[in-house]
Amino acid sequence: MLDLENSRVMDEIEELSSRKRWQEIRDLLFLFEPADIAAILAELPLDRLPVVYRLLPKELAAEVFVEMDPEEQEVLIQSFSDAELKEVLDELYVDDTVDLIEEMPATVVKRILRHSDPETRRSVNEILKYPEDSAGSIMTTEFVDLKRNMTVADALKRIRRTGIDKETINICYVTDPSRRLLGLVSIRTLLLADQEDVIEDIMETNVVSASTMEDKEDVAQDLSKYDFLAMPVVDKEHRLVGIVTIDDAIDVMEEEATEDFELMAAITPTDKPYLRAGVWDTVKSRLPWLMLLMLSATFTGVVISSFEDSLAACSVLIGFIPMLMGTGGNCGNQSSVAVIRGLSLNEIDFSDLFSVVWKEGRVALLCGVLLAAGNFVKLIVVDRILLQNSEVTVLVALVICLTLVCTVFCAKVVGCLLPLLAEKTGLDPAVMAAPFISTIVDVLSLLIYFQFATWLLKL
Amino acid sequence: MLDLENSRVMDEIEELSSRKRWQEIRDLLFLFEPADIAAILAELPLDRLPVVYRLLPKELAAEVFVEMDPEEQEVLIQSFSDAELKEVLDELYVDDTVDLIEEMPATVVKRILRHSDPETRRSVNEILKYPEDSAGSIMTTEFVDLKRNMTVADALKRIRRTGIDKETINICYVTDPSRRLLGLVSIRTLLLADQEDVIEDIMETNVVSASTMEDKEDVAQDLSKYDFLAMPVVDKEHRLVGIVTIDDAIDVMEEEATEDFELMAAITPTDKPYLRAGVWDTVKSRLPWLMLLMLSATFTGVVISSFEDSLAACSVLIGFIPMLMGTGGNCGNQSSVAVIRGLSLNEIDFSDLFSVVWKEGRVALLCGVLLAAGNFVKLIVVDRILLQNSEVTVLVALVICLTLVCTVFCAKVVGCLLPLLAEKTGLDPAVMAAPFISTIVDVLSLLIYFQFATWLLKL
Repeated sequence: MLDLENSRVMDEIEELSSRKRWQEIRDLLFLFEPADIAAILAELPLDRLPVVYRLLPKELAAEVFVEMDPEEQEVLIQSFSDAELKEVLDELYVDDTVDLIEEMPATVVKRILRHSDPETRRSVNEILKYPEDSAGSIMTTEFVDLKRNMTVADALKRIRRTGIDKETINICYVTDPSRRLLGLVSIRTLLLADQEDVIEDIMETNVVSASTMEDKEDVAQDLSKYDFLAMPVVDKEHRLVGIVTIDDAIDVMEEEATEDFELMAAITPTDKPYLRAGVWDTVKSRLPWLMLLMLSATFTGVVISSFEDSLAACSVLIGFIPMLMGTGGNCGNQSSVAVIRGLSLNEIDFSDLFSVVWKEGRVALLCGVLLAAGNFVKLIVVDRILLQNSEVTVLVALVICLTLVCTVFCAKVVGCLLPLLAEKTGLDPAVMAAPFISTIVDVLSLLIYFQFATWLLKL
Repeated sequence: MLDLENSRVMDEIEELSSRKRWQEIRDLLFLFEPADIAAILAELPLDRLPVVYRLLPKELAAEVFVEMDPEEQEVLIQSFSDAELKEVLDELYVDDTVDLIEEMPATVVKRILRHSDPETRRSVNEILKYPEDSAGSIMTTEFVDLKRNMTVADALKRIRRTGIDKETINICYVTDPSRRLLGLVSIRTLLLADQEDVIEDIMETNVVSASTMEDKEDVAQDLSKYDFLAMPVVDKEHRLVGIVTIDDAIDVMEEEATEDFELMAAITPTDKPYLRAGVWDTVKSRLPWLMLLMLSATFTGVVISSFEDSLAACSVLIGFIPMLMGTGGNCGNQSSVAVIRGLSLNEIDFSDLFSVVWKEGRVALLCGVLLAAGNFVKLIVVDRILLQNSEVTVLVALVICLTLVCTVFCAKVVGCLLPLLAEKTGLDPAVMAAPFISTIVDVLSLLIYFQFATWLLKL
């Protein structure tokens, strides 16, 4: 395997293309997988892209096309003659055509639909009807369907005849005359069976399927849970309308994980790779959240202001505010992330609310007490004895440590509750992560801190 | 498909098993996929598990066994007779046997190895030699290998003869007499080709492969990038020693994502599902980080103490400390998460250091200036005019807003640099996320704040 990281490939292609050594470029590209060729072409100046792309043979060209970014796809389509466009479209699977249509501007879409064959156009329109995050929207309609009374020999003959246009032949689906899903049979079973066996005797019944309107994330999770290579998608009447293949499911899982990471860091999800998103796009995805969180920090300001006199009377308390808020934030973050991840892996759901809170409550008490103990020792040994800070009295240390216990408890409970409540109300639980929870926990920790200070230090 | 969420299945099995209606339990279990049956069995009291498990026919039993948690697997193995153990082991694929051995205590491992057939034992020992996170450690040695001079008819015959024991027959590998990998051919190509075609004419050469010592995460990423169903694994002499199948790659991707989520929330990764980890386990995975971060917050305390007099002189400044630290932390978090995710999706690597910093720098300046502007308006309109807080002078607002610009800049640059440096030095970049970065940014933001306050307010 050639290593693409090795940027010499790019230099070589640059040089060959400036010297118009097309045959050599073609031979060089042939050594790579479609995904790598797309990455190489992406580095070319846009005006040279169509020339180099045309060097690829028809079938490979389509595979490379699918792997490209929308910007480059658009440049290519603009440069295609009608005949060339039709050639590429004929090679695409229906779900790839749908992806393409979703990314292109209206004029390009019209041109694409005009040059698709009628059957593809019908399938595309079918798939486009489904909501954005549904199983229907990511399925392909090109699967192998068999009938229950076929023999294995008939089935293999049918696969040989129609398989070339199917996205996968590894799993074949058995349907009745009204297209209802009866069972499935893998190519492995077909090959290992007798030629005379009848499909209905060797097919698996009790097939796990998804419905067209099911969340695509759940379908991807199920594919992974059951180790399937494809998931059949059925409509309300249990008619088989498409399949979701494992490669598309993996893409969904990666996108959803990235989306969770971004939401948890207070970034509006974008689907562009990091270095491809422009500065302004990046600012747009980050600024609104920063602004919101900054302005909501007004509450911490108000709380502190209202205790300004007490703080002036016992100014040593000020220095511990960041530690208390930070520890609270970290605790809340830990439990929210654990719950958010559990929710997206379907390990927990809203009905586990009680067990989650019960668990986090006990974890919080243990953590809180141990942190407080650690901190008490640190305050007395480091601050009072070593640094000779006489303001750190045992009573002050007690205020800080009691605050720690209560803050950690509140933070962990808030941290596990909010994502569960978000899930229940249909919000994305990932929004309820560090930044949002910190803002709440900051206010809580200050209120608890000043309460204990007022009681114990009589401020 | 039956819905497992429906807990009535459990009640039904509980009831049937107390009334010893084994046949009915068996019929009920038959309706589910192996992963679901494992989940159902996991709910049974441990002492009743072996009885119900024995109801399953041999092949299904093995599939269910693989899906179970180590605790239950151990209970089952303890309850097996030697003959039963051998029966299950014979049905397992080599990579599943390896997984099992890695989870079981030494005495159980000995018993497993004693009852595995010699060839399996050799393969298991082979795989166990590879380091924990390597491609070699997750591969299976059961693949279909073909010779270049076979005809398609020969190849299909070979698959029919040996395919039953292979983990997948969807992709077959072509090797030379010294087992070096020459190419691959999919079952689809075989089926669609002429019976008389020779393998070397229809196989794909230039095969992408992984080496045994490669990081399993990179192998999983490559499988996803190239839309492969399996990745061949070769040793240093380019001899084919195994394959990594897509289902195992998905598991790796999910584990790695979970690990990143946990590290980013300052949790030591565990591989137990959320509700299965005990309270003490959870505390152990969270407390050390909390303690470390809490104690490192000592620095913020020291910085604040050293400015105690200035703060006493201008106490309005105290109220804005949480907002400044919070905004800094959120900004650092955004860029570190974007970079960490980019690194784990292989979208960026250390060589992009300059472009990443250049991008984040510009994003930071834009965000900083806009946030400062927003905050300035808020300070003057809300705090000064509406809340009539006369302490919020234009000069104080200026100190706060200049601090914002500088803090946001530092936070974003630190946030993107640290994960890249971690990657370079071989640490997991995910450690350099919110909690760690906040702690650094907290200190930075305070230093910047007090510097501007000293200059502009002449404290």
